[in-house]
Amino acid sequence: MSILVLGTVALDTVKTPFGERKHMLGGSAVHFAMSCRLFTDVNLVAIIGADFPQKYIHFLSQKGIILTSLIRSQGKTFKWKGEYKGDLNSALTLSTELGVLSTFRPSVLKEQRNIRYVFLANLDPDIQRHLLRHMRLPRLVALDSMNYWIQHRRKSLLRLLKKVNIYVANDQEARSLSGEVNLIKAAKALRILGPQMVLIKKGEHGVLFYSDKFIFSLPAYPTEKVIDPTGAGDTFAGGFMGYLCKAKNMNETSLKKAIVFGTVAASFNVEDFGLNRTSRLSIQELSERTAKFRKCVSI
Amino acid sequence: MSILVLGTVALDTVKTPFGERKHMLGGSAVHFAMSCRLFTDVNLVAIIGADFPQKYIHFLSQKGIILTSLIRSQGKTFKWKGEYKGDLNSALTLSTELGVLSTFRPSVLKEQRNIRYVFLANLDPDIQRHLLRHMRLPRLVALDSMNYWIQHRRKSLLRLLKKVNIYVANDQEARSLSGEVNLIKAAKALRILGPQMVLIKKGEHGVLFYSDKFIFSLPAYPTEKVIDPTGAGDTFAGGFMGYLCKAKNMNETSLKKAIVFGTVAASFNVEDFGLNRTSRLSIQELSERTAKFRKCVSI
Repeated sequence: MSILVLGTVALDTVKTPFGERKHMLGGSAVHFAMSCRLFTDVNLVAIIGADFPQKYIHFLSQKGIILTSLIRSQGKTFKWKGEYKGDLNSALTLSTELGVLSTFRPSVLKEQRNIRYVFLANLDPDIQRHLLRHMRLPRLVALDSMNYWIQHRRKSLLRLLKKVNIYVANDQEARSLSGEVNLIKAAKALRILGPQMVLIKKGEHGVLFYSDKFIFSLPAYPTEKVIDPTGAGDTFAGGFMGYLCKAKNMNETSLKKAIVFGTVAASFNVEDFGLNRTSRLSIQELSERTAKFRKCVSI
Repeated sequence: MSILVLGTVALDTVKTPFGERKHMLGGSAVHFAMSCRLFTDVNLVAIIGADFPQKYIHFLSQKGIILTSLIRSQGKTFKWKGEYKGDLNSALTLSTELGVLSTFRPSVLKEQRNIRYVFLANLDPDIQRHLLRHMRLPRLVALDSMNYWIQHRRKSLLRLLKKVNIYVANDQEARSLSGEVNLIKAAKALRILGPQMVLIKKGEHGVLFYSDKFIFSLPAYPTEKVIDPTGAGDTFAGGFMGYLCKAKNMNETSLKKAIVFGTVAASFNVEDFGLNRTSRLSIQELSERTAKFRKCVSI
């Protein structure tokens, strides 16, 4: 079993109370892949520009990420610049340079079209749908989005929601798309839009899972060390999807376990800038902290 | 076993997106008592003014709350007026009339001095300390406070913290008193100030418990129905302390159970204005929802 992730590969410039880093390797697909790789093979579908450093390609290869559908194009790599203040709970975007992203049309190899686990990380919903049409028999498709697309590509997003199994959103996005302030009401409203499962990420407050069969609420891992939360949501999704892919079956127990693994993976992500921590993470470390976390949340 | 609670008895005027209620029975001691009574006898220590409606006295008596140390004094009853908007997560105080509270010196009957479970609900820390000095051999003392006292009676509060077992605070208060933004760091810093246990209430995001022996993080009960959150924190504390008093022993298991009962009690409180829901609550209903809640949070 392997996973295919469509998303961004970015050069991130991030400032937090703990320092600043320029042009770090980042992006939704990369953060997803860095935790997902602990469970399964990850096929990355994304675009980079001519300015993308070769050392980052080597780095991703060394981490075992399959780059056959990573396109390099003329133009500049997608760049994001942001700042976190105070409790580091929300990013202030200082600038976004789309670069090659603006002309991105993803394509996958013939053999990749048979991959059954698909994560559509945050991107233009038309691009996400374009990719999804290439997939032959997906078993589990999860979709992430962001406020920009909710506002500017609402119709496309609503159409796409009917074709996915899981919609992953943060609390603001869930509220914005559903028009409901209360998160349970929001989850129910989003469920009606198509996806059988809704996963609402609440940052330092954990995760809420909603389906017709069960509801699951899990706090975040209680951590003192928050240096840079960029990519925590995608790291969560990577752990979540990775575990489900490895477990093969999908029921209440495996879904809850997947959410726990995603939560713990995200707790590592925030401990250092960019991919510094998750790129060094082993499945043993993840399992050890998961056992510790279970003690903190079990009644 | 019984509990003694020192706090306010108030007349609350509350506006939420779901309506407005004038001069409802409220106050920290009353909300605490209304959930605590499901587990044990509650002795209420508070002050009311000449304007306090007799029907509310009858109401409290009928609920089994022991009112022998409820003083009626010349002057006006404490009044609070507040409004909730949007997600109803934080109250905007429109006005506060201290009335008889400003001259309150609590006193308890001789037999009440032997009560071993004490909850010092939000009040001037000097008044809280005055009451605590009357207690002969308290086994468990929990303290609540608020930002006003943290700012204006810091010294008194810090002195009092050395004499209590549990400090109960909401996230803003915990941050304000500890000077730490991160809640784990805040809990650790508060632990050093004296109390062996720290309970941080995060509203719709649940509770964080910290002690040297274990950390416990629990989300709130996932509810769609939030009409009026006034008193939810005290309702939580009432369920928490009530269960501990009934259970008699205090270990990881009973503390976690107490936190679960407090959380579920609070979920009833928010479902209607003032005491409308908790005053009709039975231990059966509380237990049934607790079983449901356990399913939502167990891995």
